[in-house]
Amino acid sequence: MRENVMNLEVVLADGTIIKTAGLKGRSRKTSAGYNLTNLFVGQEGTLGIITEATLKLHATPEAVLSAVAPFKDFQGAVNATVAIMQSGLPVARIEFLDEKMVDACNRFSKLDLDVAPTLFLEFHGSKSNIETQGQIAEETCKSYECLKFNFATDPEKRSELWKARHSAWYAAQALKPGSKGYSTDVCVPISALPDIVTFAKDELKRLSLLGPIVGHVGDGNFHVFVIVDPKNPKDMELVHEYSVALAREALRVNGTVTGEHGIGLGKKKLLVEEFGPSGINTMKAIKQALDPLNILNPGKVL
Amino acid sequence: MRENVMNLEVVLADGTIIKTAGLKGRSRKTSAGYNLTNLFVGQEGTLGIITEATLKLHATPEAVLSAVAPFKDFQGAVNATVAIMQSGLPVARIEFLDEKMVDACNRFSKLDLDVAPTLFLEFHGSKSNIETQGQIAEETCKSYECLKFNFATDPEKRSELWKARHSAWYAAQALKPGSKGYSTDVCVPISALPDIVTFAKDELKRLSLLGPIVGHVGDGNFHVFVIVDPKNPKDMELVHEYSVALAREALRVNGTVTGEHGIGLGKKKLLVEEFGPSGINTMKAIKQALDPLNILNPGKVL
Repeated sequence: MRENVMNLEVVLADGTIIKTAGLKGRSRKTSAGYNLTNLFVGQEGTLGIITEATLKLHATPEAVLSAVAPFKDFQGAVNATVAIMQSGLPVARIEFLDEKMVDACNRFSKLDLDVAPTLFLEFHGSKSNIETQGQIAEETCKSYECLKFNFATDPEKRSELWKARHSAWYAAQALKPGSKGYSTDVCVPISALPDIVTFAKDELKRLSLLGPIVGHVGDGNFHVFVIVDPKNPKDMELVHEYSVALAREALRVNGTVTGEHGIGLGKKKLLVEEFGPSGINTMKAIKQALDPLNILNPGKVL
Repeated sequence: MRENVMNLEVVLADGTIIKTAGLKGRSRKTSAGYNLTNLFVGQEGTLGIITEATLKLHATPEAVLSAVAPFKDFQGAVNATVAIMQSGLPVARIEFLDEKMVDACNRFSKLDLDVAPTLFLEFHGSKSNIETQGQIAEETCKSYECLKFNFATDPEKRSELWKARHSAWYAAQALKPGSKGYSTDVCVPISALPDIVTFAKDELKRLSLLGPIVGHVGDGNFHVFVIVDPKNPKDMELVHEYSVALAREALRVNGTVTGEHGIGLGKKKLLVEEFGPSGINTMKAIKQALDPLNILNPGKVL
């Protein structure tokens, strides 16, 4: 998302209105002054209130190919992901569901996908080159022992293929009636994914928690949808312990405690562990400079 | 460049050392706290001194196709650029030389390129799809009346095709022995490129300046290499007048006064015009918070 934001209108703590990339700026790049745009994206309302955004638009691709590839194990799925990205193929989306999530989706969306760690892929391009891209992806997945490789280019079949991914959140919650999903959100270097996913599964076992997994594997970002009863304090304690353990493991392997959900209240302590006192003090200096009375979403992030 | 920086080690004004994306962070994305990495990229040493950078690596593509396409006029070259980018073709580089620059390159590098506004293109991909990409690019350029479309995939011929672009800076300076190049650096929405390039050429005529043009057209960023005698005060006065007029025209069409070279000393007044007093005050508040004694590259940017 971040890279698609070209300009923001922001209301500052003292009521001043600024445009982060210049009063009228909407060029694709700029090196004029400090990069305020990226400072205000993701600050969770603690530095200013975003009231308008200028976004980069992307053309609708001429052709789209979707594919679903179940693998014998997660390591194979990650190896295939790395190989596809290194091949220079312009992969548009590459998502992962673990076997538990596939099982949940089969039940919820009445599908009959192989219950296995599965990659969901999407390629964008011209009609003439999209099938070549699909073939290369298929060869790559097969060389890492994927069990099968189903693909489609027409919109209906494509949406059928991606159905499981799109309803994953609801499918996970449907595993236990009355429960809610609590989503973890770490991001690590892709090479560290297999080990940390193993860690994530082992910890689920240790704490007797149910948690299907969805990953934006191309980014090294994944979510365990821990299924809990929010009214049960024991459940909430366990899921908190789990989330913290997973975040610390992410830090150990050079990752981050949050890939996309942000810090909020829950991960403030972990942010200190990620940046150390000096990094946090730098952020605090910026917060103090822009919001000296601490009136913008107070208590969050820092 | 900016999007390839994953983490920075920065020495702050008080000697503190921070890592902008966490103590060990090297994941492809993060939403942990404020985006310090992008704040410190491009601050021209005024907020901190960068002593280490963690960069995103990209795989060497399996195959590369280079192409050179001269056009009847600049409008055609821009239209082709927009069409190629909208087609979803994963274009890796798309650069422009105007007819004066091509002429200079012919003389300097002993080439016989058509003296016309010319696009230099590069596509990355697999062996099997790179030629399809080239064909689509060729069809697109031809539908905007390019005069010819020369392309190559083997490394020697490719470097021959790009020779003009690579030595453009030296070719421009060789136009007038003893002269130096002064490069302007505006960036505008791509739709505004044809008009502002016409403006840039008209102003060159009005001020009797010599200035071949090179553009990173895919970004809307272009440079006029104004050829001047740096010891001649009249020359320097004219080139300053020219650069300011071009920057103000860029602002008028929703662009920026600098696409990649930065503000330094020369464009401080223009930065105020681009951001207005409120935007500048926001930047000053950040500068004051991080460098209260103003010891880091004082006098620059703000």
